[in-house]
Amino acid sequence: MPKGPLMIIGGAEDKLRKRTILREFVAAAGGEDARIAVVPTASSLGIEVIEVYDALFRREGAGDVIAIRPETRDDAHDQTLVASLRAATGIFMTGGNQLKLSAIICGTPLGDAILDAHERGVVVAGTSAGASIQSSHMVAFGGPGSTPKQRMTQVAAGLGLLDSSVIDQHFDQRNRYGRLLMIVSQSPQLLGIGVDEDTAAIVEQRVVHAPDDPDVAEGYDGAPHALLRVVGRGSVTIFDPARITTNAYEAKRSNPILASGIVLHTLPEGAVFDLTTRTLVPPDRRVAIEEAASFAEASHDLRQMARDIAAADASPTVLRRRLARTRKKSTPAAAPDGVTS
Amino acid sequence: MPKGPLMIIGGAEDKLRKRTILREFVAAAGGEDARIAVVPTASSLGIEVIEVYDALFRREGAGDVIAIRPETRDDAHDQTLVASLRAATGIFMTGGNQLKLSAIICGTPLGDAILDAHERGVVVAGTSAGASIQSSHMVAFGGPGSTPKQRMTQVAAGLGLLDSSVIDQHFDQRNRYGRLLMIVSQSPQLLGIGVDEDTAAIVEQRVVHAPDDPDVAEGYDGAPHALLRVVGRGSVTIFDPARITTNAYEAKRSNPILASGIVLHTLPEGAVFDLTTRTLVPPDRRVAIEEAASFAEASHDLRQMARDIAAADASPTVLRRRLARTRKKSTPAAAPDGVTS
Repeated sequence: MPKGPLMIIGGAEDKLRKRTILREFVAAAGGEDARIAVVPTASSLGIEVIEVYDALFRREGAGDVIAIRPETRDDAHDQTLVASLRAATGIFMTGGNQLKLSAIICGTPLGDAILDAHERGVVVAGTSAGASIQSSHMVAFGGPGSTPKQRMTQVAAGLGLLDSSVIDQHFDQRNRYGRLLMIVSQSPQLLGIGVDEDTAAIVEQRVVHAPDDPDVAEGYDGAPHALLRVVGRGSVTIFDPARITTNAYEAKRSNPILASGIVLHTLPEGAVFDLTTRTLVPPDRRVAIEEAASFAEASHDLRQMARDIAAADASPTVLRRRLARTRKKSTPAAAPDGVTS
Repeated sequence: MPKGPLMIIGGAEDKLRKRTILREFVAAAGGEDARIAVVPTASSLGIEVIEVYDALFRREGAGDVIAIRPETRDDAHDQTLVASLRAATGIFMTGGNQLKLSAIICGTPLGDAILDAHERGVVVAGTSAGASIQSSHMVAFGGPGSTPKQRMTQVAAGLGLLDSSVIDQHFDQRNRYGRLLMIVSQSPQLLGIGVDEDTAAIVEQRVVHAPDDPDVAEGYDGAPHALLRVVGRGSVTIFDPARITTNAYEAKRSNPILASGIVLHTLPEGAVFDLTTRTLVPPDRRVAIEEAASFAEASHDLRQMARDIAAADASPTVLRRRLARTRKKSTPAAAPDGVTS
């Protein structure tokens, strides 16, 4: 099944402090055995961007960092460049202008080499423009606002690492709800994925066990599912328009669009979403430690009482007194600050 | 059943040009027979706000406009003030600080008189703060942003004209997705309603006919439904969290909140939403006039052909010629600009 992880980063990933996302990328690329290819084509800078990521990845322990920098479609047919990319164990596409990036690499041997690398298990990451290009359908450009309006954004073809999807970035910070809603209203077969800054949606192939509930278990045929896991400071927003009612095909000019019945998921760090079934993967049940301790104690008391009653040696008065003693003993262990009762 | 219409206006309603919303309010209040009570308590201005709305409502033909301006809870117990409100055929609450408005009128004879007026069929409108206070649960204040985060907003008790709901305003313009998502994640029995500027959600009681589909017809017992209709330039956004999965009860500090499975509706002018069943009321089927004309013509041709065949006087060649003649005739009427084929 090897299909490599995708790291879809919403832009402005932390480069100075905790560097969680960049660290996770270097580890996925193989750490000291990593050979990371940086593709800075979206950027209007160039050498500066390469230098920054080179330094960042080496600081996280990457073995080798190379630059793959096509600036024309001719460059993207250069066999030497394509061959260097084939040797990479991790690919990182920088931010900038996603339409420049897609115009130069999509449908070229270099673009195909990125798709091939993903197929054989290599991690492919991209931030901002480098995130947008990963979906089959790409936000080319557009304006801000939370209400979806006709013509507020343009769609172009992306690289298609993630199929049936449209990705947007800087999602909270640049208020891009509206434009992503416009796109999924016009194309309800797409899943809309909005990623906040300093946040990554990491998509991995996993075999998922069928749930016990036979109604839900249908479709779990042993084929791997694409699971999206969230890392970072913000959230990943998902719009599932499968059951939408919309007037997007007839809304005039730049009028607001009707979109009724979109299912919305907003997922912070740690959340896992199954893209195959379009449902949240239930989080592990977390138990508050103090609550667990207090229940364990109560359970011990109850067992003691049961023994007493069974031995028929205890009057209600004796029981009451014993209970009072136990309660008094356990009072100092009352809930500490921050635990609700 | 009389329960009056509610007009929930997202702030900044057009006062100078088309004035659609204010005009609709004056009409609902009775036009030249209207006796409109303006409640400017939310505003830090006072006489200026009253003067503006007085002029606006009179320009739309309102018979009488009075000011009801309690500035303390004592004022809101004043029987003269309460009596003037009782004579109103329409009530309009201005913008400003909704927490000031609710602190002064909720739970007083004046607040109760507004609820009574609604019960007996009087239209109650409010813009901005005057919109927020209409829901059972009220956004007191909070910050902007599209990603829901713990503690980003505060809830207070509203007047409760609309039960089981929380209303937010200036929704698109001030990017208030996040805070409304936070509230419905913490209180999934509430319906979240976000209203854009110069836009009104008009809620009216209507007996709705049960749909033909017996699966859907359940619950249509002849009792009136609350229908929300949208008027104005922007949209009304509805968050239905009935089937939410969330960690809102345990998210720490100001971290992003997990909210999965919220159903989202974004409704532009003309859309009608059934608050009782929480579903979109299907829009009337609209037929493009040219498309209809072209089908009518084709249908006429087909009837002619059927007659010809029935009369057994026509060879295929005759039919083809006749068809070619008819088509040629109708070519100039081809689809005009703006009609897709």
